[in-house]
Amino acid sequence: MKFTAYAAAETGGSLHPITLELPELNSRQVLIEVTHCGICHSDLHMIDNDWGVSAYPLVPGHEVVGHVAQVGGSVQGDWIGKRVGLGWQAGSCGQCEWCVGKQENLCVKPQATIVKRYGGFATHVVADIDFIFPIPGKLDSDKAAPLLCGGVTVFSPLYRHGVGKGRRVGVMGIGGLGHMALQFSKAMGAHVWAFSGSPAKEQEAKSLGADEFCITTDATALKSAKNSLDYLLVTATADLDWMPYVNLLRPNGTICFVTGENTRINVPVGHILSNQLNITGSVIGSIETMKRMLEFAEAHGIGAHTECMPMRDVNAALTKVRRNQARYRMVLEA
Amino acid sequence: MKFTAYAAAETGGSLHPITLELPELNSRQVLIEVTHCGICHSDLHMIDNDWGVSAYPLVPGHEVVGHVAQVGGSVQGDWIGKRVGLGWQAGSCGQCEWCVGKQENLCVKPQATIVKRYGGFATHVVADIDFIFPIPGKLDSDKAAPLLCGGVTVFSPLYRHGVGKGRRVGVMGIGGLGHMALQFSKAMGAHVWAFSGSPAKEQEAKSLGADEFCITTDATALKSAKNSLDYLLVTATADLDWMPYVNLLRPNGTICFVTGENTRINVPVGHILSNQLNITGSVIGSIETMKRMLEFAEAHGIGAHTECMPMRDVNAALTKVRRNQARYRMVLEA
Repeated sequence: MKFTAYAAAETGGSLHPITLELPELNSRQVLIEVTHCGICHSDLHMIDNDWGVSAYPLVPGHEVVGHVAQVGGSVQGDWIGKRVGLGWQAGSCGQCEWCVGKQENLCVKPQATIVKRYGGFATHVVADIDFIFPIPGKLDSDKAAPLLCGGVTVFSPLYRHGVGKGRRVGVMGIGGLGHMALQFSKAMGAHVWAFSGSPAKEQEAKSLGADEFCITTDATALKSAKNSLDYLLVTATADLDWMPYVNLLRPNGTICFVTGENTRINVPVGHILSNQLNITGSVIGSIETMKRMLEFAEAHGIGAHTECMPMRDVNAALTKVRRNQARYRMVLEA
Repeated sequence: MKFTAYAAAETGGSLHPITLELPELNSRQVLIEVTHCGICHSDLHMIDNDWGVSAYPLVPGHEVVGHVAQVGGSVQGDWIGKRVGLGWQAGSCGQCEWCVGKQENLCVKPQATIVKRYGGFATHVVADIDFIFPIPGKLDSDKAAPLLCGGVTVFSPLYRHGVGKGRRVGVMGIGGLGHMALQFSKAMGAHVWAFSGSPAKEQEAKSLGADEFCITTDATALKSAKNSLDYLLVTATADLDWMPYVNLLRPNGTICFVTGENTRINVPVGHILSNQLNITGSVIGSIETMKRMLEFAEAHGIGAHTECMPMRDVNAALTKVRRNQARYRMVLEA
């Protein structure tokens, strides 16, 4: 069987349709017929080979929603036709201590949907049965697609670190990740602060769940929020002096990064220890966390705010993401 | 009533005996007749006014063991004559959220035994009833005294962060704090690594509980221990590049500082987030933690390794601490 995919032929190249031969599924794989695929910044990083792991032709796309079209020989259950999602992770070794401990996102030999595999900017995509997730009935496919990478990336730390009622939680960066983090934090019961460099985002941040809004470009505003938060989730990619953000934390507070590959954190140890602060980070989520995230999103009516475009317009959609013009997540439709 | 104390008259001065008038106890205070008092580096910091909070005459001493000699009007129970300990914290407001939440060590208006109060290098010392702790019968007074500040400082994070069986725990710095951290970590069931700049400490570190020993001045040794630890407790005061230590951590690992006022931690955010690392710190311990620590020390035969000197030789003892010649804790005896 042949299928069509949108691929970059070289580093940083535009995407063009190519025809690929579907390899035979192994016993634990499934074939998904793609209906929707979100665009994540990581797709751009892969197109640009920023991480040095890209292979070309490169087919991006790792926020996939579609229907199961084929299953491998040892897949149990009634999967054919079911609406499912696939995120960044497409497989894991199943044997390392992290897999055994149900933290597959830390697997020592992880398989990513778009690293040495063809991703979801295509009519079809292949994944391991353990890494596809039924999409709960109340979620729209376009709004669910970005939950599968961006959504779980922010849900996982909020959930793992016990964000809930009575906690004062900040979300820094109100974009593709942050706009979902606001919704999750609010639904978990926290008192939520949004931190953004764009004053224009105040209204929308509040409609997404923020109780407070603080402009990060205003040093006075940032200073006056000092000692306000139990938890700060950093979703903005920027190379900043993080000390004003660390100063937002009350004793026992946590600053957690889910982005930030090109920045460093440089803080006085004395300040961390005398306030018992925590500096930490989080990377996607486990299988279990993905399931909980989808249930939680359905229960609380949470989804990405999306702008949909036909998949053939993938290059225009990628350009919007590159220019930070997506409000808040671009989704390609088959 | 008058009593004798050893006091510095000025910043950095030697200690001399002075006679002080005992103020009337308030209703929640007790008077302790001191039998033993450990010397901690914080005593030197206070003598030297390193933190800008010293008042002179300054009476150091906040690792006190002695017997209760008087109690205030509303103190319940049979305290007179009881052997008790007193650590860094001598009081708290009792009303802030941290006190109410049983984390008195984070109290917004804490009272320290030697800040604007006279400490334990004296025949007598005053403390609030809530901050004195009966010393379990099996603990020797000299070995128990350093548990009251140094001991709880290392026990509190190990306990709070769930150090136990199956965890790979490192202690960096085998001195006054580290030699107790090795004992606690081992008794908690961890596989214990000692990290020290002194090859000569290998034997002793192993006798204290270390399963492995690594010389920190040997970059190759440090590098070969990469990715070995779930938890690293930093007890050494030094201004270092902490990256080689962060690199000791496996995914989900924690580096916790209990000293380090004059250093910064500067690490790439990408490394923290992709490994879900935690950088944190800890400051003394709560009332509850102090009680658990003393019970745990008795149950597992843990105590400081001490060198005792008569209190009149306080200046000679302080000099040994200043020169890092204490093995491992100096204790003054009445």
